[in-house]
Amino acid sequence: MIRQVFYSAFPYRGVIRNGACGALLLLGSFLSNATVADDMLRADPDRMQSRIEALRKFGTNPEGGVSRVAFSDADLAGRAWLKEQMVSLGLEVKTDTAGNIIGRRAGSDDDLAPILFGSHIDSVPGGGNYDGQVGVVGALEVVELLNEAGITTKHPLEVVSFTDEEGGLVGSRAMIGKLTEDAMDVVSNSGFTIREGLRRVGGDASRIAEAARTPDSLSAFLELHIEQGGLLEQKQLQVGVVQGIVGIRWWDVTIEGVANHGGTTPMRQRNDALVAASRLAIAVNTTATELEGRQVATVGRIEAFPGAPNVVPGRVVMSLEIRDLDADKMQQLFDLIQAQAVDIAQSAEVSISFTELDVASPPALTDTAIRDLIAESTEALGYSYQRMPSGAGHDAQDLAKITPTGMIFVPSKGGISHSPYEYTSPEDMANGASVLLHTILALDAQ
Amino acid sequence: MIRQVFYSAFPYRGVIRNGACGALLLLGSFLSNATVADDMLRADPDRMQSRIEALRKFGTNPEGGVSRVAFSDADLAGRAWLKEQMVSLGLEVKTDTAGNIIGRRAGSDDDLAPILFGSHIDSVPGGGNYDGQVGVVGALEVVELLNEAGITTKHPLEVVSFTDEEGGLVGSRAMIGKLTEDAMDVVSNSGFTIREGLRRVGGDASRIAEAARTPDSLSAFLELHIEQGGLLEQKQLQVGVVQGIVGIRWWDVTIEGVANHGGTTPMRQRNDALVAASRLAIAVNTTATELEGRQVATVGRIEAFPGAPNVVPGRVVMSLEIRDLDADKMQQLFDLIQAQAVDIAQSAEVSISFTELDVASPPALTDTAIRDLIAESTEALGYSYQRMPSGAGHDAQDLAKITPTGMIFVPSKGGISHSPYEYTSPEDMANGASVLLHTILALDAQ
Repeated sequence: MIRQVFYSAFPYRGVIRNGACGALLLLGSFLSNATVADDMLRADPDRMQSRIEALRKFGTNPEGGVSRVAFSDADLAGRAWLKEQMVSLGLEVKTDTAGNIIGRRAGSDDDLAPILFGSHIDSVPGGGNYDGQVGVVGALEVVELLNEAGITTKHPLEVVSFTDEEGGLVGSRAMIGKLTEDAMDVVSNSGFTIREGLRRVGGDASRIAEAARTPDSLSAFLELHIEQGGLLEQKQLQVGVVQGIVGIRWWDVTIEGVANHGGTTPMRQRNDALVAASRLAIAVNTTATELEGRQVATVGRIEAFPGAPNVVPGRVVMSLEIRDLDADKMQQLFDLIQAQAVDIAQSAEVSISFTELDVASPPALTDTAIRDLIAESTEALGYSYQRMPSGAGHDAQDLAKITPTGMIFVPSKGGISHSPYEYTSPEDMANGASVLLHTILALDAQ
Repeated sequence: MIRQVFYSAFPYRGVIRNGACGALLLLGSFLSNATVADDMLRADPDRMQSRIEALRKFGTNPEGGVSRVAFSDADLAGRAWLKEQMVSLGLEVKTDTAGNIIGRRAGSDDDLAPILFGSHIDSVPGGGNYDGQVGVVGALEVVELLNEAGITTKHPLEVVSFTDEEGGLVGSRAMIGKLTEDAMDVVSNSGFTIREGLRRVGGDASRIAEAARTPDSLSAFLELHIEQGGLLEQKQLQVGVVQGIVGIRWWDVTIEGVANHGGTTPMRQRNDALVAASRLAIAVNTTATELEGRQVATVGRIEAFPGAPNVVPGRVVMSLEIRDLDADKMQQLFDLIQAQAVDIAQSAEVSISFTELDVASPPALTDTAIRDLIAESTEALGYSYQRMPSGAGHDAQDLAKITPTGMIFVPSKGGISHSPYEYTSPEDMANGASVLLHTILALDAQ
């Protein structure tokens, strides 16, 4: 079968680990000029859509999305459904101490470290049916396709659904050994602490360290996910090959002026913290826009104190977030913003201070060789694509710290995400799952 | 006594009601050139300071100001003290159905409508020792001076302490018949509804209409108050002759953009409501500053939605307040702001709407003849002064609707108000009370 020829045509031995991919690029050129192999295994859009709809039942919200925050009753019901699906596909299912659901499919050489792939099924409050869910449903589809085709990979395969991605990548952080005891008493969106939540889903906070995987215990990690942005749709592309997950830095910015009576303080005698904060918010936007590159900077939260309509604000606290794939670029943008803050503070006679919050995540690059494998598979399947950063955070950014990691994006209609109005068509989902399958097979063939 | 000559030198018959004050202006010129009468009755700074300190005991806050919100236990204790003071000064004390405390001193012609003067003793939460209190202590001082001098005025005098000024001029609104049943279930800063609060202070919500006074039942109203701004101090003036209480209009301004993911939405594809709101806040400040006049405009409150650091704000709601003595000027300023909002909305691709709140108070002008009487008295006493608007609201703005009203300002250190750090020196308080006394005597002599 041409399919078998295709698989064996990926001679990527050692490429992933050492990045020496000259041969791969040559082959890529060959494949991209070749006729698309029409009998390549491809995911079934209807079957994926059915699973999306099955999942929708657990936590349906009035708008037709889901509110299935981790550890909620809806999450528990969704997890039960997922485990049944895994069992019915012949996977050996276990839940680790972090509550991650892992379904294992044996390889022909079961001593090899498994290829891990999946995403998450928890949602934000008032979320949609695609964020995370497409990656899990796509992983099930991959297994079903392999079952139907009677293919046994050399490597064991592990399908994963991570715990509480939306609450701070809880499951994947535990898997890379970075979830500490301190986090256990944080109250999650469900109202339960992480500790209580883990107990509800079959995890065990007191043994959280056992969820950690070593680099040796994994061959690679792959995540299929909706883009959560509008680039693919605008460019009418079918697939995004993710170059990495952008780094994120957060600051609280405090502007201190002088609070005063809004009736008795003449305009020219005010030290209005909000007027200065407004100038800074505009400077943040303008600077991030005018600098060359894909960096973004956002002021999403603002509060004026004392906050009464009849009092000149004496203090404003606002958030600042900067994201980019390049940590140096993030610093450059922050330095430019800070320099403008100095000017604003001087001319407005206020003080402006930046306090960086301890929630920074550095840029997490995907494995260059896996990026190429994803691109090759996409080309072989005849789908259009581009390489792009992920502006949103994902479990993949954790896994990238311990194993070669790749990430596949499919379009989000209108770029809408974290909303009941998220939408990805069955065809787009299936395209992504097909790319996932063939990337796994290419990895397995090394 | 020169004092008696001075009183009889104010031949202001009919001036207040008909505004024909040519003779008064002539006399004013004469007096301002005359030697200051050294034996004029003057208020005692120490006695006033003692009463301020006595009042401070009821609701002292940690910073040394008072938190004596209306209807609180501290307010009840302060009221009891005030009634004792009134009784000890020989006043006939009653509490009307709105809880206003009124102490009456009979006139030689008790059929004349009384001259009413006073202010309030309630404070904002975390307030100071001078706002309102100086006016009440000054009124007591006037009575004490008259008692000591053995002077009986023709008109009856009524000292008033209004209920819940800080909660919306509750007592004075009732006195002009504008406090409706609807207001009774509003929860005051004390946690009690107005209805419950009135019961606590000896008022009666069900008979609130009985607190209303007719225009015929009053000859005039005078209020001594701290400036709550910094103009007198900056210009080193001792007294402000208040031209009126500025009108106030409030709007909620809503800026609608598109909420989006702060990581995945490129800078140039954002409809960031906060960036547009920032431009508008700057336009409000610039326009109010550059327009000629004393108008002020304030954005004191702002909120971005959804309000997360990692979400581009889709909606911002902010307050807009405009104040001026001239209603046309207020409208002109609003029109200019609104025109700029149209430009901002177009260029930022957002929508901006203004919703005016039903809390507007029109400018309330003081009586022109009483302004002149206050100025004359101030000059006769040898104090420096200027005419000025009140940027803050006062009970006087209500009384001005039913009776000729005057208002006397004394300096606020640093312009600070509604704060434990508000301060007016004993000498400044006494200057104000002396002006109040001689204005009353001049009114009485008409």
